[in-house]
Amino acid sequence: MKRVGLVGAGYWGPNLARVLNQTPACDFVAVCDRVPEQVERIARQYPSVNGYANVDEFLASSVDAVVVATPISSHYEIARRALVAGKHVLVEKPLAHSADLAQALTDLAAERNLILMTGHTFVYSPPVVKIRELIESGDLGDIYYVSLSRVNLGLYQKDVDVIWDLAVHDISILLYWLGEAPIDGMSMGRACVQAEKNDVAFLWLKFPSGIVASIEISWLSPQKLRRTCVVGSKRMVVYDDTSTDEKVKIYDCGVQLPEPKSFGEFHLTYRLGDMRAPRLANAEPLLIEVEQFVRSIETGEVPPTDGRFGTDVVRVLEKVAGQRAFEDPALVASAVGRTR
Amino acid sequence: MKRVGLVGAGYWGPNLARVLNQTPACDFVAVCDRVPEQVERIARQYPSVNGYANVDEFLASSVDAVVVATPISSHYEIARRALVAGKHVLVEKPLAHSADLAQALTDLAAERNLILMTGHTFVYSPPVVKIRELIESGDLGDIYYVSLSRVNLGLYQKDVDVIWDLAVHDISILLYWLGEAPIDGMSMGRACVQAEKNDVAFLWLKFPSGIVASIEISWLSPQKLRRTCVVGSKRMVVYDDTSTDEKVKIYDCGVQLPEPKSFGEFHLTYRLGDMRAPRLANAEPLLIEVEQFVRSIETGEVPPTDGRFGTDVVRVLEKVAGQRAFEDPALVASAVGRTR
Amino acid sequence: MKRVGLVGAGYWGPNLARVLNQTPACDFVAVCDRVPEQVERIARQYPSVNGYANVDEFLASSVDAVVVATPISSHYEIARRALVAGKHVLVEKPLAHSADLAQALTDLAAERNLILMTGHTFVYSPPVVKIRELIESGDLGDIYYVSLSRVNLGLYQKDVDVIWDLAVHDISILLYWLGEAPIDGMSMGRACVQAEKNDVAFLWLKFPSGIVASIEISWLSPQKLRRTCVVGSKRMVVYDDTSTDEKVKIYDCGVQLPEPKSFGEFHLTYRLGDMRAPRLANAEPLLIEVEQFVRSIETGEVPPTDGRFGTDVVRVLEKVAGQRAFEDPALVASAVGRTR
Amino acid sequence: MKRVGLVGAGYWGPNLARVLNQTPACDFVAVCDRVPEQVERIARQYPSVNGYANVDEFLASSVDAVVVATPISSHYEIARRALVAGKHVLVEKPLAHSADLAQALTDLAAERNLILMTGHTFVYSPPVVKIRELIESGDLGDIYYVSLSRVNLGLYQKDVDVIWDLAVHDISILLYWLGEAPIDGMSMGRACVQAEKNDVAFLWLKFPSGIVASIEISWLSPQKLRRTCVVGSKRMVVYDDTSTDEKVKIYDCGVQLPEPKSFGEFHLTYRLGDMRAPRLANAEPLLIEVEQFVRSIETGEVPPTDGRFGTDVVRVLEKVAGQRAFEDPALVASAVGRTR
Repeated sequence: MKRVGLVGAGYWGPNLARVLNQTPACDFVAVCDRVPEQVERIARQYPSVNGYANVDEFLASSVDAVVVATPISSHYEIARRALVAGKHVLVEKPLAHSADLAQALTDLAAERNLILMTGHTFVYSPPVVKIRELIESGDLGDIYYVSLSRVNLGLYQKDVDVIWDLAVHDISILLYWLGEAPIDGMSMGRACVQAEKNDVAFLWLKFPSGIVASIEISWLSPQKLRRTCVVGSKRMVVYDDTSTDEKVKIYDCGVQLPEPKSFGEFHLTYRLGDMRAPRLANAEPLLIEVEQFVRSIETGEVPPTDGRFGTDVVRVLEKVAGQRAFEDPALVASAVGRTR
Repeated sequence: MKRVGLVGAGYWGPNLARVLNQTPACDFVAVCDRVPEQVERIARQYPSVNGYANVDEFLASSVDAVVVATPISSHYEIARRALVAGKHVLVEKPLAHSADLAQALTDLAAERNLILMTGHTFVYSPPVVKIRELIESGDLGDIYYVSLSRVNLGLYQKDVDVIWDLAVHDISILLYWLGEAPIDGMSMGRACVQAEKNDVAFLWLKFPSGIVASIEISWLSPQKLRRTCVVGSKRMVVYDDTSTDEKVKIYDCGVQLPEPKSFGEFHLTYRLGDMRAPRLANAEPLLIEVEQFVRSIETGEVPPTDGRFGTDVVRVLEKVAGQRAFEDPALVASAVGRTR
Repeated sequence: MKRVGLVGAGYWGPNLARVLNQTPACDFVAVCDRVPEQVERIARQYPSVNGYANVDEFLASSVDAVVVATPISSHYEIARRALVAGKHVLVEKPLAHSADLAQALTDLAAERNLILMTGHTFVYSPPVVKIRELIESGDLGDIYYVSLSRVNLGLYQKDVDVIWDLAVHDISILLYWLGEAPIDGMSMGRACVQAEKNDVAFLWLKFPSGIVASIEISWLSPQKLRRTCVVGSKRMVVYDDTSTDEKVKIYDCGVQLPEPKSFGEFHLTYRLGDMRAPRLANAEPLLIEVEQFVRSIETGEVPPTDGRFGTDVVRVLEKVAGQRAFEDPALVASAVGRTR
Repeated sequence: MKRVGLVGAGYWGPNLARVLNQTPACDFVAVCDRVPEQVERIARQYPSVNGYANVDEFLASSVDAVVVATPISSHYEIARRALVAGKHVLVEKPLAHSADLAQALTDLAAERNLILMTGHTFVYSPPVVKIRELIESGDLGDIYYVSLSRVNLGLYQKDVDVIWDLAVHDISILLYWLGEAPIDGMSMGRACVQAEKNDVAFLWLKFPSGIVASIEISWLSPQKLRRTCVVGSKRMVVYDDTSTDEKVKIYDCGVQLPEPKSFGEFHLTYRLGDMRAPRLANAEPLLIEVEQFVRSIETGEVPPTDGRFGTDVVRVLEKVAGQRAFEDPALVASAVGRTR
């Protein structure tokens, strides 16, 4: 059974620790963080886990695979060292703070014949998988456009702006659903509370097939929205992730233009049919993601969010945001230092 | 008492007829439409109303004021003739199909000392007026951004695209609330069903004060949304026009950055307070609008949606849509012809 | 074509006038009300309609059928006179203020071979018809129970309490759906604002098949609820009449007890499936009701809400409320007097 | 610091263990369950906790206080032994399966001068506390009625029916809010899936002050409802426990009857004002409950859900359900045996 270790035990790490412990197909054996209290907390809760304060000592241990949940600025450096040390790697999203570095990790993993996977958790969530099936089966017809809103009050991130923090989810969902990367993209944001860090932004994407998408993201919104609308020529879907029981609603409706178009006339037909909310599995996406990682290590199966996919997401983020996640080399250095 | 006539008795005209009839401060005396059945229907329902098929005969009658509810392409020409004939004019939105023509009407009305008003009905609706009060009083603090969604399935318009049909509402609301015209604007749309006519579009606006706004409009959406979110530094507002009883919700919440900012630290404070949904009057906006028109005629009071305001809205539409409402001179000619 | 007249042009009458005017299969020819302004208002709007202040003169006219929309206390007397005069009769709900009188009208109509119908409008509404189809087809399995809530702020009725005003709808829906009359029923109400007139009440019903039902009705509720839940052994339905697009939701879920039950064990299985909201016709129930009345006159077809049905509803009301709609003979006399 | 032990580590026990561990004011030192795996699971997670399989050995240990989370049928016997052993006791709701036994526990605790508290968790939840404050302050005026719905699909209980399982919450909330016990009560239920065990029930209560209440409870409902409406003469409240951010909505509305009532006239006035959703603390009710238990032990403060309160709740349950929680002595004996 594969031996898996976790780097980064701060905000998100404990969730990964719990899920690693729940996954029967792997052994959760090691945790690494430069903050001793965070290592201790994990080690106490999972007695079979060894704690490390130093990444290199952690990587020198007998772990086969590494899950990276550190601040974004250190993703590249830690993942690189882990690959160099011969470990399979699952990196929390985004894969790296620039597309070039993400590509470099992907190349390195390919050279070493190691699994490199990005933790785009939504790609493993039942509603998102269901909608991909609907798109791929042709049930929705041609996709016209997608509109996505992901807004709420907080949580502000320390090292990245709202695009790198929230739009990363929507972009991964779009790439997974549409199977194509956008040919054009823009954003308009505003840094309302903190200087030079957008806390609200509106994104536009155009895809080669003609599909357009709009993404609204905000840390400054009084109501929480997790709403996505996919409009196809045959059917339309609303995916509301805040709903408990009816996350996906499929509307059997549309507009038709009769052929041949009689000159000078205007005869649109509206088709209004049933709405259906399919029953979705209650499985935890993070658990499915970790199971995919372990299965890919065992079988060589390419995960849907492999290094190439993670690199594509970062490339879109860079293009839309007009910059890398951050430019300050000191920040990058200090961030890596955090887990040393 | 002022004598008022109506030109255009098609889709929207009957609503104006009903409201003109309900307004005690004016006499509803004439209706004009090139379709005889539509004239008859109004004349039968309001026996004191005379019917006309010809605009010039209608304008030669004893009406003091004219309400124009014809297709957009004929707004300019009919309003111009009415002003030349010495009538006060209320034109359905948008004031004209280009900003230059809208400006020309505004100038003409000023020269003749006549009231020219645009039928931006939302500006007269209690929720929109309430939010303007909240903004003007400073209750919301500095406005950071506004996000507006106006989507549903249908109704496709014959002569204009979705921007000229739906965004005209949102732009009028923004100009009314913010009291400033945007310095920058763009749109991304797609003509999904009909060639060369957008049925979905996403708009961005930047205002001189730094406020940004996003508008999502669609004729192709499975759920109806009429949702606007106004985010200020002190309070935030959600205005949902599909709600029956709680159209305006005021959230006493925000984010604070302590001063002086200690170097290297990150201490945002979230303020989460009560939500309040103020009771709003149940008055019909169209009735308030017509009452404003009559009152402005009587007293000379400048209406909030005067010619200048209507021209500003068209100027933003042109800039954002990248074009006039339509370019085809034949269409313009034939549209005016419709009511001749 | 049958000539139809309307008695009672107060609160509800104008809606019936509009619908009678819209129904191509009948001629709307007469209106009667003791208040002259109400007669005039109808006669002005529908010029072919003759106005009457006296019921007997109205009944002596050439109308073939009569729609009764007067206060409840006068239903019996006016319907009786109309039947005696040989007219078919549609009476607004409830048919009469006591079951004995409702039965007497039913018997009289049968003797005279005239159509007697009660205006239980909900029985003609698409969601209610849809749910009856689901029950009759066996799609829901055995019905376990029905829970109904009909609450809002106002409108207080002058002559009856909340049970006779609101529960009459729910009881008619239950009788229509279940096809059986309850064997037991009770209510607990409270007269909160006005002495001796319940403005909130809770009703229980037991049906011969074992089905139980609960009805909550109130004129004193801050939110409007029009919610009905039908629980069957195979599927469950929620009918929300305040929803615009998804009035009926069908849940493919249930609980199963395995057979044979192993002693001492507890193995319930939950079945959780899709939810479906069928597209429903947008037709106005009142129009369908009037069309049914005219069709029954023409063809002799028994309407679903015939006199017998209306009598059953009043019998349940009497039993549950513990009394007739009102006991005061003076009130009854004066109410009839109102339309004389 | 007081040493606290837990009896019963099945379905609900782990939540209490977590909360006991989180409470700084007490030491969580012991757990007892007849199922060894459940004891081990708790002991592993909280290393300072000793495990016991036998209640008497557990009670002979040095614990000062005991939390009882066993099946309802054993509440009385375990609580009795704990009190006899001189321990303070917190019993999960309901206090016992009959009012006589609940009273006996209350008397025993009083004799021994020990704290006896019932785990009516909702009484410690911020929305319920908020509404009690609104009632007590007079903000709502006189309370007219309360309507409560607590329905969803599952979870079926093994030893009690839906009244003893779910209505216990609503009755505890009502007693806490109104500060009086009902003078009358009834229920109508149906055993739909399992013989002789109600899975749906409707309850009615009348209170000495004239307030009436209705409770709808069901394990067989396709949508989850946790909705309570409190109607007062001045204001009305809707408490929706399924809402994330707006659990309590206060409506400033009502109906007024002018004084003196003019004879024969009907002049009700509706008052429609703002709605306000107060910000509520995010605290976990179970934690507040355990803190209350520890504080009561330390200070002698009477907890709001003391033995008398818990007895009152059971007395109402017995009256409304028409029986004790179960009648079978063998079941009672075997249930106690479970934790021996």
